Amino acid sequence: MRKVYLDHIAATPLDTRVFDVMLPFLKEKYGNPQSLHSSGQEALAAVEESREKVAQLINSEASEIFFTSSGSESNNFALKGLAMARSSRGKHIVISAVEHQSILQSAKNMEKLGFTVSIVPVDKWGMVDPDDVKKTITRETILVSVLLASSEVGTIEPVGEIARICRSQNVLFFTDAVAAVGNIPVDVKELGVDGLSLAGNQFYGPKGSAALFIKAGTRIFSLIDGGIQEGGRRAGTENVAGIVGLGKAADIAKKEMNQRTEKLNPLRDMLIQQLPQKIDHVILTGHPEKRLPFQASFCIEFIEGEAMLLSLDMNGIAASSGSACTSRALKASHVLLAMGISHAVAQGSLVFSLIEETTSKDISYLLEVFPPVVERLRKMSPLYSKYLEEKKG
Amino acid sequence: MRKVYLDHIAATPLDTRVFDVMLPFLKEKYGNPQSLHSSGQEALAAVEESREKVAQLINSEASEIFFTSSGSESNNFALKGLAMARSSRGKHIVISAVEHQSILQSAKNMEKLGFTVSIVPVDKWGMVDPDDVKKTITRETILVSVLLASSEVGTIEPVGEIARICRSQNVLFFTDAVAAVGNIPVDVKELGVDGLSLAGNQFYGPKGSAALFIKAGTRIFSLIDGGIQEGGRRAGTENVAGIVGLGKAADIAKKEMNQRTEKLNPLRDMLIQQLPQKIDHVILTGHPEKRLPFQASFCIEFIEGEAMLLSLDMNGIAASSGSACTSRALKASHVLLAMGISHAVAQGSLVFSLIEETTSKDISYLLEVFPPVVERLRKMSPLYSKYLEEKKG
Repeated sequence: MRKVYLDHIAATPLDTRVFDVMLPFLKEKYGNPQSLHSSGQEALAAVEESREKVAQLINSEASEIFFTSSGSESNNFALKGLAMARSSRGKHIVISAVEHQSILQSAKNMEKLGFTVSIVPVDKWGMVDPDDVKKTITRETILVSVLLASSEVGTIEPVGEIARICRSQNVLFFTDAVAAVGNIPVDVKELGVDGLSLAGNQFYGPKGSAALFIKAGTRIFSLIDGGIQEGGRRAGTENVAGIVGLGKAADIAKKEMNQRTEKLNPLRDMLIQQLPQKIDHVILTGHPEKRLPFQASFCIEFIEGEAMLLSLDMNGIAASSGSACTSRALKASHVLLAMGISHAVAQGSLVFSLIEETTSKDISYLLEVFPPVVERLRKMSPLYSKYLEEKKG
Repeated sequence: MRKVYLDHIAATPLDTRVFDVMLPFLKEKYGNPQSLHSSGQEALAAVEESREKVAQLINSEASEIFFTSSGSESNNFALKGLAMARSSRGKHIVISAVEHQSILQSAKNMEKLGFTVSIVPVDKWGMVDPDDVKKTITRETILVSVLLASSEVGTIEPVGEIARICRSQNVLFFTDAVAAVGNIPVDVKELGVDGLSLAGNQFYGPKGSAALFIKAGTRIFSLIDGGIQEGGRRAGTENVAGIVGLGKAADIAKKEMNQRTEKLNPLRDMLIQQLPQKIDHVILTGHPEKRLPFQASFCIEFIEGEAMLLSLDMNGIAASSGSACTSRALKASHVLLAMGISHAVAQGSLVFSLIEETTSKDISYLLEVFPPVVERLRKMSPLYSKYLEEKKG
């Protein structure tokens, strides 16, 4: 059976060139970067070289990059750490309605510590209106967090404009860029953000490797206290192999991002155009143009996402029904609901996210295999029967 | 030049058998454990198998194990998360004077949130007296944290007895067992602890792999909020390869710990006995018997640790001057100071920590190379000149 992996947003495969540079740090180069002997020095040099490469990918300084273990850790670190460090000025946080759970839950937990959180709505494309952010900012507001791009619906947010508004109001602006960095050009200076998160497993780097950019001079409290690693801001023995892999993945992404996009964009568009031609009652979710190059997301009415995923899997196709961090929770996505999609329709969420290796044959295979799957599942769907009856009557 | 790595406490090499099981998860098995398709299922099964192995190493249930990215993260998670979850009962935390920085700094930061922290002293061996813990517990006390073994001075603490006291007072007891687990037998049921941390890079597993044991039924707040990973208690895409490596390392440790100890104990004792015979003014730090099998730590008077480390490094020997998490900070260790060692003497701290591969030839080489190093450094030491003059006069 053909194997087609279309779940980039859950995890990308590791680039073999990334694996190759990690290998020595899993074998003979096992020193701890904080050790003073040469084995430690060697590890430290590799960590700092990676920091430089990650910085180059997003046009920051190396000293503004802090390595973490996941995008979720970076998001927690940023939201909690920036808010805590600014709490003497005010205790109001603004986030968008389509944030990742790691931002959403962090914000909720800050409420327990006396912070208040406002949630800015989105339009039907999942897009935040910068004016809405502006209106939500009060004199108590210290931090605004809006994601750069949604892995679930693909929409790219007007983050530069929101950052400008925040700057003019002297409010910190953080963006969860986990789905974006390494896949589309991201320049922290151009965007004007105070903080930004990224994760290696979104651009062919290893799982367990991620980073947080914090603009020089911005105070942040640590999430993980202890040793002097990461400038004393993030304690814990460095995952050297993971960090080295992240650096290499950043380096490759910087050089090859454009050609990846040139390859994936037409394939994504092929899927976006042809799927609704082959299946009825299909809704494209997210913005039709301002979206991630590798991502095509839909709601397939009258069927549940889980049933489709399992049927696709039986045909060798790996896809997802939204964020991997919640997929097993099987609840309707808060992102889709925030876009005004009904609870029933949101249940049929399906995300196809392409990887570098994806070919037009893969997409053709999906377009061939998927319509009969939908047809079969709809035959068993009480919602679909009801729809047909109502249509008749 | 002979290469002798005696810095177990900073990081152990990766066991090749551990590397072998990690490899597929760095290559073809790149699924996200939270994905519903077979690629995700495969990753999830591997994560759960590892959880079982880690549980077996410490005699817990698999459901009581939460994977994290480092011992420091586990310690932060435990100290902050247990204290926050119990804060309605009281806000007093008790820790020992010889805790790792990740516990010490976490406790300090809890003071900002209205908690009070008492620090229990240690004797000249770095040993906590359980009676001192008992006396420090008040009606406000919710959590006691005492490490199981100190990597810096090797001393193994009477944790079982302290846990008993805490249980009888209805106070939670947590132990930082990062230096102990995988190296000496640790049984959470026998010890009666409510929480315990461990890290893979202390027993031939990968960096970036660690875990927290939390006894079933014990409430804990998350440090990293977000997705549903780790039972909703620790969000973030799992570092699958790291977790798989940790499981294998745990499995190997369980089977081979005794033979490792039987091999390393005599080598450690050879070093402890012979070093003071070859060098004057050497003090063994930590308990003479109740200590980690692979660890020999000293204070070499009249010289600074850093100078010795660099000289040893030039002779191919990797050692440390205490915890890797603070070694670059070059401050006198709070552990040694708490043991009543003077600031001047504490500067000469040196830790030799053996790894599985260490041979008696390695120790002989150290015993041959080190005395001339000390002699040369003392010749340049103003402290030593002063001592000699005072001795004469």
